[in-house]
Amino acid sequence: MKVSEERITEALGTLEGWSREDKWIVKKYRFREYMDGIRFVNRVAELAECMNHHPMIAIDYKMITTKLTSWSAGGLTELDFEAATAYDQAFLS
Amino acid sequence: MKVSEERITEALGTLEGWSREDKWIVKKYRFREYMDGIRFVNRVAELAECMNHHPMIAIDYKMITTKLTSWSAGGLTELDFEAATAYDQAFLS
Repeated sequence: MKVSEERITEALGTLEGWSREDKWIVKKYRFREYMDGIRFVNRVAELAECMNHHPMIAIDYKMITTKLTSWSAGGLTELDFEAATAYDQAFLS
Repeated sequence: MKVSEERITEALGTLEGWSREDKWIVKKYRFREYMDGIRFVNRVAELAECMNHHPMIAIDYKMITTKLTSWSAGGLTELDFEAATAYDQAFLS
């Protein structure tokens, strides 16, 4: 179920580096080494399979962009914010 | 060194599924399973490190898009076509 505008604002307030683009939330992660970024993509892909929720991922050398939305709901849902939190934890660990 | 327009046409004629977009060559690879696509991304990333030539990669669920250009030359070089051939071999193997 799509969340309210108020909930989106609140959720983005608790996340670092995520911004909103229309029906998406987006974050760019930067890495010191190319293969560090690739390892992060693998972590995100495993989380995506576990959560059955797959982000758009772009690999531009040492910068990885992740974009989340919920197609089935036609916008952002709690699952998008859960996934964003999980990617941030994977990035920090 | 940038290759000629004639060479680009010739090289694209020997590749399957690659198309030209301005200074880039682009191909979309489709996979039956999400993790098959992720494994392919890992193969491409290893080739990128070996060749010291890194494509743009986009992961959109089971579709992986690779884009190649040579920034240092300001356009397409033989290395782009070598990389394209290597990705196709990785896809088929």
